[in-house]
Amino acid sequence: MKFANNSKKWLQYFPVFDWGRRYGRIELTGDLTAAGIVTIMLIPQSLAYALLAGLPAEVGIYASILPLVAYAIFGSSRALAVGPVAVVSLMTASALAPLGISNVADYIAAAGVLALLSGAMLLVMGALRLGVVANFLSHPVIAGFITASGLLIAVGQIKHLLGIAAHGHNLPEIIASLWRNLGDVNFATVMIGSLALITLAWVRKYLSQYLQNRHGLSTSVAATVARIGPVFAIIGTVVLSWGLDLPGWGVTVVGEVPTGLPPFGIPSIDWSLLPMLLGPAALISVIGYVESVSVAQTLAAKRKQRIDPNQELIALGASNLASGLSGGFPVTGGFSRSVVNFDAGAQTPAAGAFTAVGLLLAAVFLTPLLYFLPKATLAATIIVAVLSLVDFTILKTAWRYSKADFTAVATTILLTLIVGVELGVAAGVLISLVLFIWKTSRPHVAEVGQVPGSQHFRNIDRHLVLTDPRLVTLRIDESLYFANARRMEDLVLDRVYRDREHLQHVVLMCSAVNEIDLSALESLEAINQRLKDQGVKLHLSEVKGPVMDRLKCGDFLDQLTGRIFLSQYDAYTKLTDGADSE
Amino acid sequence: MKFANNSKKWLQYFPVFDWGRRYGRIELTGDLTAAGIVTIMLIPQSLAYALLAGLPAEVGIYASILPLVAYAIFGSSRALAVGPVAVVSLMTASALAPLGISNVADYIAAAGVLALLSGAMLLVMGALRLGVVANFLSHPVIAGFITASGLLIAVGQIKHLLGIAAHGHNLPEIIASLWRNLGDVNFATVMIGSLALITLAWVRKYLSQYLQNRHGLSTSVAATVARIGPVFAIIGTVVLSWGLDLPGWGVTVVGEVPTGLPPFGIPSIDWSLLPMLLGPAALISVIGYVESVSVAQTLAAKRKQRIDPNQELIALGASNLASGLSGGFPVTGGFSRSVVNFDAGAQTPAAGAFTAVGLLLAAVFLTPLLYFLPKATLAATIIVAVLSLVDFTILKTAWRYSKADFTAVATTILLTLIVGVELGVAAGVLISLVLFIWKTSRPHVAEVGQVPGSQHFRNIDRHLVLTDPRLVTLRIDESLYFANARRMEDLVLDRVYRDREHLQHVVLMCSAVNEIDLSALESLEAINQRLKDQGVKLHLSEVKGPVMDRLKCGDFLDQLTGRIFLSQYDAYTKLTDGADSE
Repeated sequence: MKFANNSKKWLQYFPVFDWGRRYGRIELTGDLTAAGIVTIMLIPQSLAYALLAGLPAEVGIYASILPLVAYAIFGSSRALAVGPVAVVSLMTASALAPLGISNVADYIAAAGVLALLSGAMLLVMGALRLGVVANFLSHPVIAGFITASGLLIAVGQIKHLLGIAAHGHNLPEIIASLWRNLGDVNFATVMIGSLALITLAWVRKYLSQYLQNRHGLSTSVAATVARIGPVFAIIGTVVLSWGLDLPGWGVTVVGEVPTGLPPFGIPSIDWSLLPMLLGPAALISVIGYVESVSVAQTLAAKRKQRIDPNQELIALGASNLASGLSGGFPVTGGFSRSVVNFDAGAQTPAAGAFTAVGLLLAAVFLTPLLYFLPKATLAATIIVAVLSLVDFTILKTAWRYSKADFTAVATTILLTLIVGVELGVAAGVLISLVLFIWKTSRPHVAEVGQVPGSQHFRNIDRHLVLTDPRLVTLRIDESLYFANARRMEDLVLDRVYRDREHLQHVVLMCSAVNEIDLSALESLEAINQRLKDQGVKLHLSEVKGPVMDRLKCGDFLDQLTGRIFLSQYDAYTKLTDGADSE
Repeated sequence: MKFANNSKKWLQYFPVFDWGRRYGRIELTGDLTAAGIVTIMLIPQSLAYALLAGLPAEVGIYASILPLVAYAIFGSSRALAVGPVAVVSLMTASALAPLGISNVADYIAAAGVLALLSGAMLLVMGALRLGVVANFLSHPVIAGFITASGLLIAVGQIKHLLGIAAHGHNLPEIIASLWRNLGDVNFATVMIGSLALITLAWVRKYLSQYLQNRHGLSTSVAATVARIGPVFAIIGTVVLSWGLDLPGWGVTVVGEVPTGLPPFGIPSIDWSLLPMLLGPAALISVIGYVESVSVAQTLAAKRKQRIDPNQELIALGASNLASGLSGGFPVTGGFSRSVVNFDAGAQTPAAGAFTAVGLLLAAVFLTPLLYFLPKATLAATIIVAVLSLVDFTILKTAWRYSKADFTAVATTILLTLIVGVELGVAAGVLISLVLFIWKTSRPHVAEVGQVPGSQHFRNIDRHLVLTDPRLVTLRIDESLYFANARRMEDLVLDRVYRDREHLQHVVLMCSAVNEIDLSALESLEAINQRLKDQGVKLHLSEVKGPVMDRLKCGDFLDQLTGRIFLSQYDAYTKLTDGADSE
């Protein structure tokens, strides 16, 4: 069965022509409102995530302009807002650290190249329709990775709140580094940082409720105001910082930020560094894609719309290319900004384009005002944002549900925290696959009998069923392939050895066998031969169409001592009534 | 279902106490006869495989003494004969080459260390009962690997037949190297080599038939004589070489071989080389084990005996430790020697111990006679032996049966020939696993209906079946797990969108679903929710016991809008008769 999705060839790569044709006043109003709100929200977020990636503040704004336009053209989600996000920014920092670049301009260029590489990879994956690759990141692994990254990011920002230096890309490194420099704590920084942190935490947790209860705002308006709360913290601390001359008290501020349009062109780096960026770029692509697609899918489902996963690869690829070409760094669809965009009434991706205009104006006119912005405020913004991602309940859920899922989550969390993001997520994916293969290599096999009064057959250990001493039916609960073929041979032969006297027929019930590969075919031939030596016939029942097609290619069916039955009921009645006397 | 195999604790690790207790005159006669014949056969083979591994001739004999005793104590096969074999010798040469050792004594020591490492790994695997690891080498990959290795070995021996130097560990390297040195061909060597090659090929192909027809020998006696044929070639060419003074004509001979007992002790190497040997040792362990176990299983089946795969790990581990400690190199159970042993009437592993005594006598008394033995004779022995391993029909079989199996074989063969044995086999295993995962990530889904007059349900595209417009039943032909969960979501929802008007129920028939992991559970919850939004109920049928147990751990069953039916027939009748009106 195949559900094809045919559209007009090249047009499918430009969803803009689809929604653009039906664009009207209602859409415009919704999109403009959403753009205004998202712009206000994005300014602090962009600055903060640039800081997290180890980049100057303006880079964060640049990364929120052209990428939005690119997404507006290529994206299939109506509400997704792209730009710098926490986890990808952390991965950017982690990717660039081993390059050992000390010069700021070179570091910015390297971040740009990372975005270009990631964009190119996403485009290639999109062209090859490899959206499925993201499926290999299991939900628990993603959940564990996001939780661990969130924690890592939050701990990594403590240095800005304390006004000390600290380095490291995993928990032990960061904590050791913080501990060593604890003597340099700057108390003015701690004061302003704590103020920002407390305000932001309060805003996030209570403002929406407060606005609804005290001022009668509607839930969605109140939630939107609460989400742009960080802007007030920024304005407040900038004013304090300027009024009290906090830089004079040792508080690190953003300082001089270049004014004007983002640069445009291919960033120039030492190209010998390129190979070191390939692995991280691939990981950033996949993680960014998974994060973005799940946000897009969640929002699309709410309005009963659908997104096209392969088109999303192309849209994110274009966004990252745009970011890399315009002085930015790797971007993806972010959760909070997309939700705000959605709640504020964005109707089409044009909202993103309008947001881009808003941020362009900010880049040109607003940056001088950021001189006095304490980095501690940005750190507080990040901490409050990422701590909401930290959710260790996935460990409990997975533990209750399955030890294999738990192992994958626990490994991902532990390695991400202790070694770093790249190894953490790679190990999570790998261990999930290894556990899956391990499980399929040790399949469940049930001996079945007839459920009385039905034509249905079930496990003799779990159900009260009818059996016949002349016949053993084994239901094999797995596709037969090289990793379990030999084991299957042993299981079947062991079962037969236990019960040799009366046995005349062995039926393998293949309802759960979705494939038989060449190794398994050889094992079946061996089973057939060994049973033949003992005067026992081998039969198969409920062999599926595709498996049957495959079996017809070899000569197993000619060698088979018994028969192939359409249904297990058929096999049971024919073999026990003595009808099978040929 | 579990088939436990309980025995007396530690005794199970020493099969010698099992068969030793019942040892009598019949066993002794059989074992002594077999030992005599195998000893004669092993002398040329041991010398030749030492040459193949790049080692002096006597090392091959040492590797055929203590390892046999170790296997006699620990082995579970009654007929397996261990010692140097072609593929493992090639892998030894390939493992030692990158170390760049020029001194012969150091090279011998490194080969010994490789045997020790491999022995230790096999013992650890045996203690952990990891015999299953071998199952991850699929039959086609093994077949492809053996064929490619055989070809590689044969081509690698051409230099000895031509009397020129050549190096390389893959086909392009060897051929280029032969080509460059073609000017140095020694005609006396070519003559003696061709003579040996033709004789051996004739012996292998026709001698058995000839002895049966002309001299009335029984099939098994004739076959045994044919198998020890290489001894005659050796004796013949030694006599020629001595009588015609071939070394004086530029023919390379074995030369001075140390006489006496094998050395005993841990070989001393530059221990910084150890890490480079770990990977190759692991590969040698697994390949050697797989080869040995399949020989042992084939022979055991003929006498309706069984072997214990985990005990075989211990026995081969002990054999390799014994080899490493007594001046040998990696060993494993060999096909031809085991068959000869079996055919000649070996009853117990004691035959191996007697063979060891025979070879010990050879090491002490026979080696001076080998001075004049041309290396070309040994090369001819190897070529004739390994060419029987080369069998490209596996490519055809695999192509006919399945493209996935074909891809795995073709990759293994190509990479083994072009790059080398280690990469070849590793790539074969990896690609088999990747293809398996890829297939399970794109499962077959069939829409099913009732086979008229039965309670059986089959694919509507393949069978004439009854359906009902109110109900769609999808049979999911794969375990549900992270790699296919999202795809399943899309397939089910796409199917429902196509047919919205009359649809009231969707049944997922889970007869082929052997597992539902946490990611798939979330997808099922999503499907349930999306169908609920459209007023369609979701039901499951034929959920297996272990899967049901798992589902009870989460709260999916509480959220489920529909029901769980024991059988699909149950679901169909209840849902279409309107009985399900709650």
